[in-house]
Amino acid sequence: MKKSLVALALLGAFSGAHAQSSVIIYGTLDAGFAKTTNTTPGVSSPTTIGKRDNNKLGFRGTEDLGNGLKALFHLEIRLEPDTGTIEGVTRPLFQGQSRVGLQGNFGTVRLGRGLTALQESTTAYEPWSGLPNVAGFQTDLQVGGYRTATPGSGSDPLGPAGNSGNRFSNAVFYNSPVYRGFQLNWTWGTRENNGLATFIQGRNPTYPGTAPGFNAQYPVGRQGGAYPYSVSATFTEPSSAPRYSVMLANERNATEVSLWSVAGYVRPMPALKLMATYNKQDLDNVTPVSALGRMSEINSWVLGMNYTMGPGKLLLGYGQKHPEMVLKTKQASIGYEYNLSPRTYVYLDLSNKKLPAAVTSTVTTTQNHYSMGIHHNF
Amino acid sequence: MKKSLVALALLGAFSGAHAQSSVIIYGTLDAGFAKTTNTTPGVSSPTTIGKRDNNKLGFRGTEDLGNGLKALFHLEIRLEPDTGTIEGVTRPLFQGQSRVGLQGNFGTVRLGRGLTALQESTTAYEPWSGLPNVAGFQTDLQVGGYRTATPGSGSDPLGPAGNSGNRFSNAVFYNSPVYRGFQLNWTWGTRENNGLATFIQGRNPTYPGTAPGFNAQYPVGRQGGAYPYSVSATFTEPSSAPRYSVMLANERNATEVSLWSVAGYVRPMPALKLMATYNKQDLDNVTPVSALGRMSEINSWVLGMNYTMGPGKLLLGYGQKHPEMVLKTKQASIGYEYNLSPRTYVYLDLSNKKLPAAVTSTVTTTQNHYSMGIHHNF
Amino acid sequence: MKKSLVALALLGAFSGAHAQSSVIIYGTLDAGFAKTTNTTPGVSSPTTIGKRDNNKLGFRGTEDLGNGLKALFHLEIRLEPDTGTIEGVTRPLFQGQSRVGLQGNFGTVRLGRGLTALQESTTAYEPWSGLPNVAGFQTDLQVGGYRTATPGSGSDPLGPAGNSGNRFSNAVFYNSPVYRGFQLNWTWGTRENNGLATFIQGRNPTYPGTAPGFNAQYPVGRQGGAYPYSVSATFTEPSSAPRYSVMLANERNATEVSLWSVAGYVRPMPALKLMATYNKQDLDNVTPVSALGRMSEINSWVLGMNYTMGPGKLLLGYGQKHPEMVLKTKQASIGYEYNLSPRTYVYLDLSNKKLPAAVTSTVTTTQNHYSMGIHHNF
Repeated sequence: MKKSLVALALLGAFSGAHAQSSVIIYGTLDAGFAKTTNTTPGVSSPTTIGKRDNNKLGFRGTEDLGNGLKALFHLEIRLEPDTGTIEGVTRPLFQGQSRVGLQGNFGTVRLGRGLTALQESTTAYEPWSGLPNVAGFQTDLQVGGYRTATPGSGSDPLGPAGNSGNRFSNAVFYNSPVYRGFQLNWTWGTRENNGLATFIQGRNPTYPGTAPGFNAQYPVGRQGGAYPYSVSATFTEPSSAPRYSVMLANERNATEVSLWSVAGYVRPMPALKLMATYNKQDLDNVTPVSALGRMSEINSWVLGMNYTMGPGKLLLGYGQKHPEMVLKTKQASIGYEYNLSPRTYVYLDLSNKKLPAAVTSTVTTTQNHYSMGIHHNF
Repeated sequence: MKKSLVALALLGAFSGAHAQSSVIIYGTLDAGFAKTTNTTPGVSSPTTIGKRDNNKLGFRGTEDLGNGLKALFHLEIRLEPDTGTIEGVTRPLFQGQSRVGLQGNFGTVRLGRGLTALQESTTAYEPWSGLPNVAGFQTDLQVGGYRTATPGSGSDPLGPAGNSGNRFSNAVFYNSPVYRGFQLNWTWGTRENNGLATFIQGRNPTYPGTAPGFNAQYPVGRQGGAYPYSVSATFTEPSSAPRYSVMLANERNATEVSLWSVAGYVRPMPALKLMATYNKQDLDNVTPVSALGRMSEINSWVLGMNYTMGPGKLLLGYGQKHPEMVLKTKQASIGYEYNLSPRTYVYLDLSNKKLPAAVTSTVTTTQNHYSMGIHHNF
Repeated sequence: MKKSLVALALLGAFSGAHAQSSVIIYGTLDAGFAKTTNTTPGVSSPTTIGKRDNNKLGFRGTEDLGNGLKALFHLEIRLEPDTGTIEGVTRPLFQGQSRVGLQGNFGTVRLGRGLTALQESTTAYEPWSGLPNVAGFQTDLQVGGYRTATPGSGSDPLGPAGNSGNRFSNAVFYNSPVYRGFQLNWTWGTRENNGLATFIQGRNPTYPGTAPGFNAQYPVGRQGGAYPYSVSATFTEPSSAPRYSVMLANERNATEVSLWSVAGYVRPMPALKLMATYNKQDLDNVTPVSALGRMSEINSWVLGMNYTMGPGKLLLGYGQKHPEMVLKTKQASIGYEYNLSPRTYVYLDLSNKKLPAAVTSTVTTTQNHYSMGIHHNF
């Protein structure tokens, strides 16, 4: 995600200007044709204008405070390019992030809302670089099924309905300096339940059977059972073209669901990047006993490859997710990007995904997906 | 609509900047006093702060990809200046447009959401240049009553309730290069029904009598009956001050309602522009049989004049709309703009409109309108 | 509120640029830890990420029209940094303001939506400079309880539910030039009821007992009982470091509730600013007869002090609000700001507030509040 540089300060030309300032406008627009079969079993989506990446319009800036200290902020609007609405129609305006903080020798500390340490760190080990499209692995397999579509799961289970599952609201974000290749990232959230009366319904109460199977209930307004946190530690070869990197990460959300993730990549030659991730989600605190028994754990792994060929890049990935007692999900994807410039490319993605037809189903359904389009950073 | 130039790239001053970039912030703020009598028969609106033009805040940019190729994007927020909300309170944030694409020798191809070819081309032949105000003719007579206020009609009949009637979502937009004065513009949309459960209701089911009079039903989620398209061909005298121009355009929406439009202008002298449009809307596919019979066609025409006098411009227009079996709508308008600069003017509009008191009414009601205010482009 | 200067025009580099232009992007991000006890009696808020100031992202510009005349506009988005939503989730996108107008020898005239003359002028006499935080006095005591939380009260009682209580929509804003230290500010609004069917409910009908106690009823869509206006006159010592200033202001809203405010400050030495305000709200037109009798008047006063110590600033305030027949509200606050630069500071606020446990209660409840965080202007 190259952020382009846009705006620049003028000194003194307007009253009220006290010091040099800068706001950088950046963003991504990505639109293309897309089609997925069996989005519900037996029903395919029409060919439509879809997206591969999140579309965004962001504003950010830094201020030099002297002595190596900086103030910095990010405000990032998300949108749907095909209809012009904000992302998901009901998500926050600044769905991408809204953070302000300080940067210095101690690292970076920010307050507000953004990706958690784990969710942000995993993207370096995913073959689609964390792009949230159907062919990519980030939003499901790369995080062991840890997302809001599963009640109680995901980074923000007590957020408004329809929110994204990989951010903390009401949080403190810390990134350490990189020391000999090591970096520590840590996110801490409050127990506030941001579900709003008009948006949220309690997640667990929608499950059948309330009493015996449950460990916790989080109706509207009830605070989380624990302070959520997310931590990732990475080691990347200290080099301008690192040949390897590893990550260990753990996150626990406000409903006490936790996720462990280990990941790594190697570059046997400069054009080739090989990636692997293994994840384990512990859902014991929120899952009821179903007809099949209790699904208290989900394991998943993803293997990936990127191969650069001149202006082109080939993406390959394969992964599996295995929730206890439930059929496996298996996904294979291939993608190709052709760079028209450092900030614009066209792409083609193909994907095949086998998944249970319903949560406790004993039959699988197969989704084929294609998308082709243009991706433009500004 | 002159777009002013605002922001500019600095090379290398910030980390993360890979290449020269530019985002142009542009927009329009227009506010004034307005009053319309008989907005419902017998009831006049209060004098209030209204607008003559759409108010917008836009972000756009282009990137030179070499070999005459460019990437380009537009993101355009619409707003209500009197209350600070987004346009119409419930419309998409980027109601103006959200598009990304490529430009080259082949013309311009964009994906996303924006004005259709027909709706965009007609503005050059309308005396208020397509401004959507009460005195103007664009949103009703200039397009033969083709708009969402009529169920099934307009460019986006399957969009969310309250949306604008002159845009395609989920669309591909093509503009040819101008060749010896000729240009072809073509918009193609998918059959996706963007009505959202919380916003939309099926249009036709709200009509009395469901069975015999209808050809089609489009409840929530049902795809359109046809791929919508819009095409316009224009010929404008190849000159920096063209003396004449003609247009032929056709659009068919997702509910198979179609609109034909022919238009032209001449400038007998540089200060004088004379305009005419004739439109025919075919509603046969969606209109029921009313007490009066079936209204399957609407014809309309508009005559207009612009006369420039130093910093001032006089606008005149007269038009009629004649839906089959229904009373005619007749509108006469006069306007005056006084330019304070190339991007700021003050205006006064007066308008008289006679229209049926209700859809199948045999009596007309008369609406008088005035507005005066300031229009500022940035 | 220092507005930083951000973007600047380039001449001629892009097609479509007709004249020099400028859009300045400005804003504030402020986030910190906050906690308030007894937000409802007996229940404390959790420690959460809160804010001290409004968070905003604004766009503004001026155009020189020659002869001392300028066109100017402001569009100001408001947001919640902890969740990334627009302010209050349901408020207008451009909650801060949306105004366009002209500036010249005659002063400044703007149309649209913004702070009223009274509400804007009082901030200079409030120890937290009008910041809307819990420790500050602006939103309650500084304006004599005049705000939307009380039905029929506040600057915009007929606006949508959840709106701010210190702005006029549909208004004309006039600021005179400063003449020998004197300035007159005047805001005039239309009687339009901007409550939208999906947002608003009539204010008064929610009161028990509709008939005898009421003077007026304002259900959805009914126009205001009077044209709202707000006027403030200030005299400030004509100096770059004024030693004293006084204000007299009056506002009457669309439901005929009015507020008088007198205020002043003195600087006995450059580092010390002493402030005082006295306010009287007349609610006679909208309040019913309660069990205690009729509360037709609210009186309040606030004393404040700012003391600058190098890069630090100490803030002190004490005030009382006395609604007729009802227990007094008493608030004492202390704050400290430490400037890291002219546009970034960190802060600590402590506050103690005694208020009636419920509107007609005979017992008081005590709220203690602390917040500490970072405030960054850009």
